Amino acid sequence: MLFFTQCFGAVLDLIHLRFQHYKAKRVFSAAGQLVCVVNPTHSLKYAPTRCAAAQTSAEQGILSPCHHHEAVHDPQLVPCTCPLFSCPWEGHLEVVVSHLRQTHRINILQGAEIVFLATDMHLPAPTDWIIMHSCLGHQFLLVLRKQERYEGHPQFFATMMLIGTPTQADNFTYRLELNRNQRRLKWEATPRSVLECVDSVISDGDCLVLNTSLAQLFSDNGSLAIGIAITTSKVHNAEAEM
Amino acid sequence: MLFFTQCFGAVLDLIHLRFQHYKAKRVFSAAGQLVCVVNPTHSLKYAPTRCAAAQTSAEQGILSPCHHHEAVHDPQLVPCTCPLFSCPWEGHLEVVVSHLRQTHRINILQGAEIVFLATDMHLPAPTDWIIMHSCLGHQFLLVLRKQERYEGHPQFFATMMLIGTPTQADNFTYRLELNRNQRRLKWEATPRSVLECVDSVISDGDCLVLNTSLAQLFSDNGSLAIGIAITTSKVHNAEAEM
Repeated sequence: MLFFTQCFGAVLDLIHLRFQHYKAKRVFSAAGQLVCVVNPTHSLKYAPTRCAAAQTSAEQGILSPCHHHEAVHDPQLVPCTCPLFSCPWEGHLEVVVSHLRQTHRINILQGAEIVFLATDMHLPAPTDWIIMHSCLGHQFLLVLRKQERYEGHPQFFATMMLIGTPTQADNFTYRLELNRNQRRLKWEATPRSVLECVDSVISDGDCLVLNTSLAQLFSDNGSLAIGIAITTSKVHNAEAEM
Repeated sequence: MLFFTQCFGAVLDLIHLRFQHYKAKRVFSAAGQLVCVVNPTHSLKYAPTRCAAAQTSAEQGILSPCHHHEAVHDPQLVPCTCPLFSCPWEGHLEVVVSHLRQTHRINILQGAEIVFLATDMHLPAPTDWIIMHSCLGHQFLLVLRKQERYEGHPQFFATMMLIGTPTQADNFTYRLELNRNQRRLKWEATPRSVLECVDSVISDGDCLVLNTSLAQLFSDNGSLAIGIAITTSKVHNAEAEM
C-alpha cells in the first residue's frame, strides 16, 4: 500500500513539473527554449547560527579554513565561488565549474536562451536559487537570492556572473526578463566576473531587484519564470546603440 | 553689478539646461525625441506638518474640504487626481487635464516617445516629479516619486496613469526605459486609470521600482532620464506575443 501511495505521489509530482514546464514555455516563446526547474537552497552562509559560530571562533582567535588558506596563497588560485556555502576550496579558474558541479551539485544547462523556473518563492529568506549556464563557449552562474536588507521586508535579487576574468566578462551582455499579467520587466547588463563576490554585487544593488509584491505579480503558483539570454556585446558602449 | 551677476547666473543655468538636454538626447536615440526637463516638487501631501495638521483637525471633528464635498457627491464627478496636494477640487473627467494644468501647473507634452529628465534626484523624500503626456488622442499622467517605505531607505517609484476610465486604460501599454552605464532596465505594463489612486499603485509596488543605488547608476549628474513610449495594445494578452 505504501509503495502505491509513494508511486502515486511521484506521478503527481511529475505531472505538476510537466505542467510548470508547459506554463513557462507558454509564457516565453516556445521556439526551442529550454525550461529549467530550479529548486531553492536555504543559504547556510547567512544562517544566524553559522554567522554566530564564525564570529565566536574569530573572537576566540580560531581561524576558519579560508584564513588558513590565505597564509599559503597562490595568486593563480581562486576561492570557491559558490554563493551558498562558506567553502574552504581553492583552485584554478578552469576547474571552478567542475568543483561547483561535483561538490555543490549545481546543475549546468546549455543554450543561448533558457528559462529559469525558480520554485517555492514563498520560502523565508535567506534562500538562493542557482544554476550554471553554458553558452557562447563560456560558463555563467545565475543567482537568484531572497534576502532581507530591511528587516521584515524580503527582496529578490537576480544576477549573472561569468566564470572567468572581468576582462572576459566585458565581452558579454546578459538579459533577464520577467513577463506575466500584462507586465514585462527586463534587465540588461554586462555580467560581472565570479572573481568579484556575488554578495557584493547584490549588496550594491547592481542587479535585477524585485520587491515581494512585484515578485508575486510575476509568479505563477509560487514559481517565478526568468527568461535568460546571453549575447556578445559587439559595441562596448551599449548606450550608443539605443 | 547685481544685474550683471544675475544675468550671468541665468546664462549659466541656460547652458547647464542645454547640456542636460544634449546628454539626454545622446543617451536616448536622437531621432526627434522630445526631452522634457522635470523639476521636483516636495510632496505636501506626505509632509509631516500637513499630515499632523489633518490628523489634529480630524481629532477635533473639523472636516477637511474633501469631506465637505463628499456630502454632496455626484457620481459623475471625480476628485482632483494631482498626486502632490490634497486638493478639494472635483469635476468631470474631461476637465481634469485643464485643472491639473491651470491649478497645479503640471506641464503637458505631445509625442509618442518622450524623454522625461527628472532633476535633483538627491532631494530628500517625499518628492514627486510629474508631467502629463498627450499621445494617441489621450492624456497620461507620469509620476516619479521618491518615498521612504522603509525608514532611512528612500526608493523611487515610477508609473503612468491614463486620465480616463479603467476600460480606456486597458487599450494601452506604456514602457519606461532607463539606459546608462551599460545597463538597461525596461518596465512595460498597462497604465492604470487616474480614478484608481496613484498612491495605492505605488504602495502596491505595481510599477517601476528603483532603490537608491540603481537610481544612482542610471543617473547622470543628479538627473535621471526615463524614456517613455505609449502604444495601443493590439493583443490584450501581452504574454502571447513573446
